[in-house]
Amino acid sequence: MEKKIITISRQFGSGGRTIGRAVAEKLGIPFYDKELVDQIALESGFDPGYIAEHGEHAPGKSLFSYAFASMGMPGVMQGMSSADFLWTIQCNVILQLAEKGPCVIVGRNADYILKDREDCLHVFIHADTHYRADRIVRLYGESEKAPLARLEEKDKRRRVNYEHYTGRDWGKAENYDVCLNSAVVGEEACVDFIVSTVNNSK
Amino acid sequence: MEKKIITISRQFGSGGRTIGRAVAEKLGIPFYDKELVDQIALESGFDPGYIAEHGEHAPGKSLFSYAFASMGMPGVMQGMSSADFLWTIQCNVILQLAEKGPCVIVGRNADYILKDREDCLHVFIHADTHYRADRIVRLYGESEKAPLARLEEKDKRRRVNYEHYTGRDWGKAENYDVCLNSAVVGEEACVDFIVSTVNNSK
Repeated sequence: MEKKIITISRQFGSGGRTIGRAVAEKLGIPFYDKELVDQIALESGFDPGYIAEHGEHAPGKSLFSYAFASMGMPGVMQGMSSADFLWTIQCNVILQLAEKGPCVIVGRNADYILKDREDCLHVFIHADTHYRADRIVRLYGESEKAPLARLEEKDKRRRVNYEHYTGRDWGKAENYDVCLNSAVVGEEACVDFIVSTVNNSK
Repeated sequence: MEKKIITISRQFGSGGRTIGRAVAEKLGIPFYDKELVDQIALESGFDPGYIAEHGEHAPGKSLFSYAFASMGMPGVMQGMSSADFLWTIQCNVILQLAEKGPCVIVGRNADYILKDREDCLHVFIHADTHYRADRIVRLYGESEKAPLARLEEKDKRRRVNYEHYTGRDWGKAENYDVCLNSAVVGEEACVDFIVSTVNNSK
Protein backbone atom coordinates (compact mmCIF):
# COMPACT_ATOMS: atom_id res chain seq x y z
CA MET A 1 0.00 0.00 0.00
CA GLU A 2 1.45 3.34 -1.08
CA LYS A 3 2.15 5.63 1.86
CA LYS A 4 1.09 9.17 1.04
CA ILE A 5 0.62 10.76 4.44
CA ILE A 6 3.33 10.80 7.07
CA THR A 7 2.41 11.51 10.69
CA ILE A 8 5.26 12.38 13.01
CA SER A 9 4.80 12.09 16.77
CA ARG A 10 7.74 13.12 18.89
CA GLN A 11 9.17 13.64 22.31
CA PHE A 12 9.81 17.31 23.02
CA GLY A 13 13.29 18.32 21.84
CA SER A 14 13.95 15.14 19.84
CA GLY A 15 14.06 16.93 16.48
CA GLY A 16 10.84 15.34 15.19
CA ARG A 17 9.54 18.60 13.76
CA THR A 18 12.83 19.37 11.99
CA ILE A 19 12.89 15.83 10.59
CA GLY A 20 9.27 16.16 9.45
CA ARG A 21 9.97 19.43 7.64
CA ALA A 22 12.98 17.92 5.84
CA VAL A 23 10.95 14.84 4.83
CA ALA A 24 8.22 17.09 3.37
CA GLU A 25 10.82 19.12 1.45
CA LYS A 26 12.51 16.01 0.02
CA LEU A 27 9.17 14.52 -1.04
CA GLY A 28 7.88 17.88 -2.29
CA ILE A 29 4.66 17.69 -0.26
CA PRO A 30 3.02 20.09 2.24
CA PHE A 31 4.21 20.19 5.85
CA TYR A 32 1.58 20.89 8.51
CA ASP A 33 2.61 22.11 11.90
CA LYS A 34 2.10 25.85 12.44
CA GLU A 35 -0.23 25.78 9.40
CA LEU A 36 -2.36 23.22 11.20
CA VAL A 37 -2.70 25.52 14.19
CA ASP A 38 -3.81 28.37 11.92
CA GLN A 39 -6.39 26.18 10.21
CA ILE A 40 -7.78 24.98 13.54
CA ALA A 41 -7.88 28.60 14.73
CA LEU A 42 -9.84 29.61 11.66
CA GLU A 43 -12.39 26.83 12.10
CA SER A 44 -12.75 27.07 15.88
CA GLY A 45 -12.51 30.78 16.52
CA PHE A 46 -9.83 30.11 19.15
CA ASP A 47 -6.71 32.24 19.31
CA PRO A 48 -3.74 30.50 17.57
CA GLY A 49 -1.67 30.98 20.73
CA TYR A 50 -4.28 29.10 22.77
CA ILE A 51 -4.28 26.19 20.31
CA ALA A 52 -0.49 25.96 20.16
CA GLU A 53 -0.50 25.82 23.96
CA HIS A 54 -3.45 23.45 24.48
CA GLY A 55 -3.79 21.41 21.27
CA GLU A 56 -1.43 18.72 22.51
CA HIS A 57 -1.72 19.29 26.20
CA ALA A 58 -3.76 17.85 29.00
CA PRO A 59 -7.47 18.47 28.61
CA GLY A 60 -8.64 21.54 30.52
CA LYS A 61 -10.23 20.52 33.74
CA SER A 62 -10.74 23.98 35.18
CA LEU A 63 -14.15 25.39 35.94
CA PHE A 64 -13.22 28.20 33.59
CA SER A 65 -12.93 25.89 30.62
CA TYR A 66 -16.40 24.46 31.19
CA ALA A 67 -17.90 27.87 31.99
CA PHE A 68 -16.38 29.15 28.78
CA ALA A 69 -18.06 26.40 26.79
CA SER A 70 -21.44 27.05 28.32
CA MET A 71 -21.31 30.74 27.45
CA GLY A 72 -22.66 29.81 24.06
CA MET A 73 -19.61 30.40 21.87
CA PRO A 74 -20.64 29.74 18.23
CA GLY A 75 -20.27 26.08 17.36
CA VAL A 76 -19.59 24.98 20.94
CA MET A 77 -21.99 22.30 22.09
CA GLN A 78 -23.57 22.90 25.48
CA GLY A 79 -21.62 21.13 28.21
CA MET A 80 -18.57 20.45 26.04
CA SER A 81 -15.33 21.73 27.54
CA SER A 82 -13.14 24.00 25.46
CA ALA A 83 -10.52 21.22 25.38
CA ASP A 84 -13.03 18.70 24.01
CA PHE A 85 -14.26 21.24 21.47
CA LEU A 86 -10.68 21.88 20.36
CA TRP A 87 -10.15 18.10 20.00
CA THR A 88 -13.24 17.77 17.79
CA ILE A 89 -12.08 20.59 15.51
CA GLN A 90 -8.55 19.15 15.44
CA CYS A 91 -9.87 15.75 14.31
CA ASN A 92 -11.94 17.34 11.56
CA VAL A 93 -9.10 19.51 10.27
CA ILE A 94 -6.62 16.60 10.21
CA LEU A 95 -9.10 14.28 8.46
CA GLN A 96 -9.77 16.99 5.86
CA LEU A 97 -6.05 17.69 5.28
CA ALA A 98 -5.42 13.96 4.72
CA GLU A 99 -8.23 13.93 2.15
CA LYS A 100 -6.57 16.79 0.25
CA GLY A 101 -3.50 14.72 -0.63
CA PRO A 102 0.03 13.71 0.38
CA CYS A 103 1.47 15.64 3.34
CA VAL A 104 3.51 15.46 6.53
CA ILE A 105 1.63 16.20 9.78
CA VAL A 106 3.55 16.78 12.99
CA GLY A 107 2.01 16.05 16.38
CA ARG A 108 -1.58 16.67 17.43
CA ASN A 109 -2.31 12.94 17.77
CA ALA A 110 -2.58 12.63 13.98
CA ASP A 111 -1.34 9.01 14.18
CA TYR A 112 -4.51 8.11 16.10
CA ILE A 113 -6.88 10.38 14.17
CA LEU A 114 -5.71 8.81 10.87
CA LYS A 115 -5.29 5.25 12.17
CA ASP A 116 -7.93 3.85 9.80
CA ARG A 117 -6.24 5.17 6.64
CA GLU A 118 -3.90 2.56 5.21
CA ASP A 119 -1.99 5.13 3.17
CA CYS A 120 -0.33 6.62 6.27
CA LEU A 121 3.18 6.02 7.55
CA HIS A 122 3.21 6.64 11.30
CA VAL A 123 6.55 7.74 12.74
CA PHE A 124 7.65 8.35 16.34
CA ILE A 125 10.88 10.26 17.05
CA HIS A 126 12.47 10.16 20.48
CA ALA A 127 15.90 10.59 22.05
CA ASP A 128 17.55 10.29 25.42
CA THR A 129 16.90 13.02 27.91
CA HIS A 130 20.33 14.66 27.94
CA TYR A 131 20.47 14.96 24.15
CA ARG A 132 17.05 16.62 24.18
CA ALA A 133 17.93 18.92 27.08
CA ASP A 134 21.04 20.17 25.24
CA ARG A 135 19.05 20.58 22.04
CA ILE A 136 16.23 22.68 23.51
CA VAL A 137 18.69 25.03 25.19
CA ARG A 138 20.61 25.38 21.91
CA LEU A 139 17.43 25.99 19.87
CA TYR A 140 15.08 27.79 22.23
CA GLY A 141 17.52 29.29 24.72
CA GLU A 142 17.54 29.13 28.50
CA SER A 143 14.38 29.77 30.50
CA GLU A 144 13.56 30.09 34.18
CA LYS A 145 12.91 26.38 34.37
CA ALA A 146 15.77 23.86 34.17
CA PRO A 147 15.82 22.03 30.78
CA LEU A 148 15.07 18.63 32.35
CA ALA A 149 12.00 20.05 34.10
CA ARG A 150 10.84 21.63 30.80
CA LEU A 151 11.16 18.28 29.02
CA GLU A 152 9.35 16.41 31.74
CA GLU A 153 6.47 18.88 31.89
CA LYS A 154 5.98 19.08 28.11
CA ASP A 155 6.20 15.30 27.57
CA LYS A 156 3.82 14.66 30.44
CA ARG A 157 1.25 17.08 29.04
CA ARG A 158 1.50 15.51 25.57
CA ARG A 159 1.22 12.02 27.02
CA VAL A 160 -1.79 12.85 29.20
CA ASN A 161 -3.55 14.52 26.26
CA TYR A 162 -2.82 11.55 23.96
CA GLU A 163 -3.95 8.95 26.48
CA HIS A 164 -7.08 10.93 27.39
CA TYR A 165 -8.28 11.31 23.81
CA THR A 166 -7.04 8.07 22.23
CA GLY A 167 -7.15 5.51 25.05
CA ARG A 168 -3.76 4.26 23.82
CA ASP A 169 -0.33 4.32 25.46
CA TRP A 170 1.87 7.12 24.16
CA GLY A 171 5.12 5.99 22.53
CA LYS A 172 4.18 2.31 22.21
CA ALA A 173 6.12 0.89 19.26
CA GLU A 174 3.25 -1.07 17.75
CA ASN A 175 1.21 2.12 17.24
CA TYR A 176 3.83 3.35 14.74
CA ASP A 177 5.49 1.92 11.66
CA VAL A 178 8.87 3.47 12.39
CA CYS A 179 10.26 4.66 15.77
CA LEU A 180 13.73 6.17 15.81
CA ASN A 181 16.10 7.50 18.44
CA SER A 182 17.31 10.61 16.61
CA ALA A 183 20.36 10.94 18.89
CA VAL A 184 21.61 7.48 17.88
CA VAL A 185 20.44 7.30 14.27
CA GLY A 186 21.17 10.96 13.42
CA GLU A 187 18.61 13.46 12.06
CA GLU A 188 19.76 13.17 8.44
CA ALA A 189 19.62 9.37 8.47
CA CYS A 190 16.12 9.54 10.02
CA VAL A 191 15.00 11.78 7.14
CA ASP A 192 16.58 9.56 4.48
CA PHE A 193 15.04 6.40 5.93
CA ILE A 194 11.52 7.87 6.15
CA VAL A 195 11.78 9.17 2.58
CA SER A 196 13.04 5.83 1.25
CA THR A 197 10.29 3.94 3.13
CA VAL A 198 7.69 6.16 1.47
CA ASN A 199 9.33 5.75 -1.95
CA ASN A 200 9.58 1.96 -1.52
CA SER A 201 5.85 1.77 -0.81
CA LYS A 202 5.00 3.09 -4.29
CA MET B 1 29.61 5.93 19.94
CA GLU B 2 30.30 2.93 17.72
CA LYS B 3 27.56 0.32 17.90
CA LYS B 4 29.08 -3.15 18.02
CA ILE B 5 26.34 -5.25 19.55
CA ILE B 6 22.84 -5.41 18.12
CA THR B 7 20.00 -6.74 20.27
CA ILE B 8 16.81 -7.66 18.46
CA SER B 9 13.56 -7.95 20.40
CA ARG B 10 10.53 -9.01 18.40
CA GLN B 11 6.88 -9.87 18.37
CA PHE B 12 6.33 -13.54 17.52
CA GLY B 13 6.07 -14.03 13.76
CA SER B 14 7.34 -10.54 12.85
CA GLY B 15 10.50 -11.81 11.18
CA GLY B 16 12.83 -10.36 13.82
CA ARG B 17 14.98 -13.48 13.96
CA THR B 18 15.32 -13.68 10.18
CA ILE B 19 16.23 -9.98 10.09
CA GLY B 20 18.77 -10.48 12.89
CA ARG B 21 20.45 -13.37 11.07
CA ALA B 22 20.71 -11.34 7.84
CA VAL B 23 22.16 -8.35 9.74
CA ALA B 24 24.81 -10.61 11.31
CA GLU B 25 25.69 -12.08 7.90
CA LYS B 26 26.01 -8.67 6.26
CA LEU B 27 28.18 -7.35 9.10
CA GLY B 28 30.17 -10.60 9.29
CA ILE B 29 29.61 -11.02 13.04
CA PRO B 30 28.25 -13.89 15.16
CA PHE B 31 24.50 -14.41 15.49
CA TYR B 32 23.21 -15.73 18.82
CA ASP B 33 19.84 -17.34 19.02
CA LYS B 34 19.96 -21.14 19.19
CA GLU B 35 23.66 -20.83 20.14
CA LEU B 36 22.62 -18.77 23.13
CA VAL B 37 20.27 -21.50 24.28
CA ASP B 38 23.06 -24.09 24.01
CA GLN B 39 25.43 -21.91 26.00
CA ILE B 40 22.85 -21.34 28.73
CA ALA B 41 22.15 -25.09 28.77
CA LEU B 42 25.83 -25.82 29.22
CA GLU B 43 26.20 -23.38 32.11
CA SER B 44 22.94 -24.19 33.86
CA GLY B 45 22.62 -27.91 33.38
CA PHE B 46 19.07 -27.39 32.05
CA ASP B 47 17.86 -29.21 28.97
CA PRO B 48 18.07 -26.96 25.84
CA GLY B 49 14.39 -27.70 25.13
CA TYR B 50 13.45 -26.40 28.57
CA ILE B 51 15.41 -23.17 28.01
CA ALA B 52 13.97 -22.58 24.54
CA GLU B 53 10.51 -22.99 26.07
CA HIS B 54 11.00 -21.00 29.28
CA GLY B 55 13.86 -18.56 28.63
CA GLU B 56 11.51 -15.88 27.34
CA HIS B 57 8.33 -17.01 28.94
CA ALA B 58 6.46 -16.21 32.10
CA PRO B 59 8.38 -17.10 35.24
CA GLY B 60 7.40 -20.50 36.60
CA LYS B 61 5.00 -20.13 39.46
CA SER B 62 4.27 -23.80 39.96
CA LEU B 63 5.10 -25.60 43.17
CA PHE B 64 7.17 -27.92 41.03
CA SER B 65 9.51 -25.17 39.93
CA TYR B 66 10.27 -24.17 43.53
CA ALA B 67 10.50 -27.78 44.71
CA PHE B 68 12.96 -28.42 41.90
CA ALA B 69 15.16 -25.55 43.08
CA SER B 70 15.19 -26.75 46.66
CA MET B 71 16.32 -30.25 45.67
CA GLY B 72 19.86 -28.93 45.69
CA MET B 73 20.67 -28.89 42.01
CA PRO B 74 24.31 -27.82 41.59
CA GLY B 75 24.58 -24.03 41.45
CA VAL B 76 20.95 -23.42 42.38
CA MET B 77 20.59 -21.17 45.39
CA GLN B 78 18.23 -22.42 48.08
CA GLY B 79 14.75 -20.95 47.61
CA MET B 80 15.42 -19.68 44.09
CA SER B 81 12.88 -20.87 41.53
CA SER B 82 14.12 -22.62 38.40
CA ALA B 83 12.85 -19.62 36.39
CA ASP B 84 14.88 -17.17 38.51
CA PHE B 85 17.93 -19.42 38.26
CA LEU B 86 17.54 -19.56 34.48
CA TRP B 87 17.28 -15.75 34.38
CA THR B 88 20.51 -15.39 36.39
CA ILE B 89 22.40 -17.71 34.03
CA GLN B 90 20.88 -15.98 30.99
CA CYS B 91 22.11 -12.57 32.25
CA ASN B 92 25.61 -13.92 32.83
CA VAL B 93 25.84 -15.62 29.43
CA ILE B 94 24.60 -12.52 27.57
CA LEU B 95 26.97 -10.20 29.47
CA GLN B 96 29.88 -12.55 28.67
CA LEU B 97 28.96 -12.82 24.97
CA ALA B 98 28.85 -9.01 24.70
CA GLU B 99 32.32 -8.86 26.25
CA LYS B 100 33.65 -11.25 23.58
CA GLY B 101 33.00 -8.79 20.74
CA PRO B 102 30.55 -7.62 18.08
CA CYS B 103 27.46 -9.81 17.65
CA VAL B 104 23.71 -9.92 17.07
CA ILE B 105 21.60 -11.29 19.95
CA VAL B 106 17.95 -12.15 19.38
CA GLY B 107 15.42 -12.06 22.22
CA ARG B 108 16.00 -13.16 25.81
CA ASN B 109 15.62 -9.60 27.14
CA ALA B 110 19.15 -8.77 25.94
CA ASP B 111 18.12 -5.12 25.42
CA TYR B 112 17.58 -4.81 29.17
CA ILE B 113 20.51 -6.99 30.24
CA LEU B 114 22.89 -4.85 28.12
CA LYS B 115 21.19 -1.50 28.75
CA ASP B 116 24.28 -0.02 30.42
CA ARG B 117 26.59 -0.71 27.46
CA GLU B 118 26.70 2.29 25.16
CA ASP B 119 28.02 0.24 22.24
CA CYS B 120 24.66 -1.53 21.74
CA LEU B 121 22.02 -0.80 19.14
CA HIS B 122 18.66 -1.94 20.49
CA VAL B 123 16.09 -2.92 17.85
CA PHE B 124 12.43 -3.94 18.18
CA ILE B 125 10.64 -5.62 15.26
CA HIS B 126 6.87 -5.87 15.16
CA ALA B 127 4.08 -6.21 12.59
CA ASP B 128 0.34 -6.23 12.47
CA THR B 129 -1.41 -9.35 13.65
CA HIS B 130 -2.68 -10.65 10.31
CA TYR B 131 0.73 -10.37 8.65
CA ARG B 132 2.25 -12.35 11.52
CA ALA B 133 -0.52 -14.94 11.52
CA ASP B 134 0.00 -15.61 7.80
CA ARG B 135 3.76 -15.73 8.29
CA ILE B 136 3.77 -18.30 11.13
CA VAL B 137 1.47 -20.61 9.21
CA ARG B 138 3.71 -20.30 6.13
CA LEU B 139 6.90 -20.92 8.13
CA TYR B 140 5.89 -23.26 10.95
CA GLY B 141 2.77 -24.86 9.48
CA GLU B 142 -0.68 -25.25 10.97
CA SER B 143 -1.15 -26.48 14.53
CA GLU B 144 -4.11 -27.41 16.67
CA LYS B 145 -4.38 -23.81 17.86
CA ALA B 146 -5.59 -21.04 15.56
CA PRO B 147 -2.73 -18.75 14.43
CA LEU B 148 -4.16 -15.70 16.22
CA ALA B 149 -4.36 -17.63 19.50
CA ARG B 150 -0.75 -18.82 19.03
CA LEU B 151 0.43 -15.22 18.53
CA GLU B 152 -1.49 -13.97 21.52
CA GLU B 153 -0.20 -16.68 23.82
CA LYS B 154 3.44 -16.36 22.76
CA ASP B 155 3.48 -12.56 22.89
CA LYS B 156 1.78 -12.57 26.27
CA ARG B 157 4.33 -14.99 27.71
CA ARG B 158 7.23 -12.92 26.35
CA ARG B 159 5.70 -9.72 27.68
CA VAL B 160 5.03 -11.14 31.15
CA ASN B 161 8.58 -12.51 31.34
CA TYR B 162 10.07 -9.19 30.21
CA GLU B 163 7.99 -7.10 32.60
CA HIS B 164 8.64 -9.47 35.53
CA TYR B 165 12.42 -9.43 35.16
CA THR B 166 13.03 -5.90 33.88
CA GLY B 167 10.27 -3.78 35.45
CA ARG B 168 9.89 -2.07 32.07
CA ASP B 169 7.01 -2.06 29.59
CA TRP B 170 7.56 -4.40 26.67
CA GLY B 171 7.61 -2.75 23.24
CA LYS B 172 7.94 0.83 24.50
CA ALA B 173 9.70 2.82 21.79
CA GLU B 174 12.05 4.71 24.10
CA ASN B 175 13.65 1.45 25.29
CA TYR B 176 14.96 0.85 21.76
CA ASP B 177 16.96 2.87 19.24
CA VAL B 178 15.05 1.55 16.24
CA CYS B 179 11.53 0.02 16.13
CA LEU B 180 10.24 -1.15 12.77
CA ASN B 181 7.00 -2.61 11.45
CA SER B 182 8.46 -5.30 9.19
CA ALA B 183 5.18 -5.66 7.25
CA VAL B 184 5.27 -2.00 6.24
CA VAL B 185 9.01 -1.41 5.90
CA GLY B 186 9.83 -4.80 4.39
CA GLU B 187 12.35 -7.31 5.80
CA GLU B 188 15.14 -6.40 3.38
CA ALA B 189 14.80 -2.67 4.08
CA CYS B 190 14.84 -3.39 7.84
CA VAL B 191 18.12 -5.29 7.40
CA ASP B 192 19.69 -2.57 5.24
CA PHE B 193 18.70 0.18 7.67
CA ILE B 194 20.06 -1.62 10.74
CA VAL B 195 23.33 -2.37 8.91
CA SER B 196 23.70 1.24 7.73
CA THR B 197 22.92 2.57 11.24
CA VAL B 198 25.71 0.37 12.63
CA ASN B 199 28.12 1.42 9.86
CA ASN B 200 27.26 5.13 10.34
CA SER B 201 28.11 4.86 14.04
CA LYS B 202 31.75 3.99 13.27
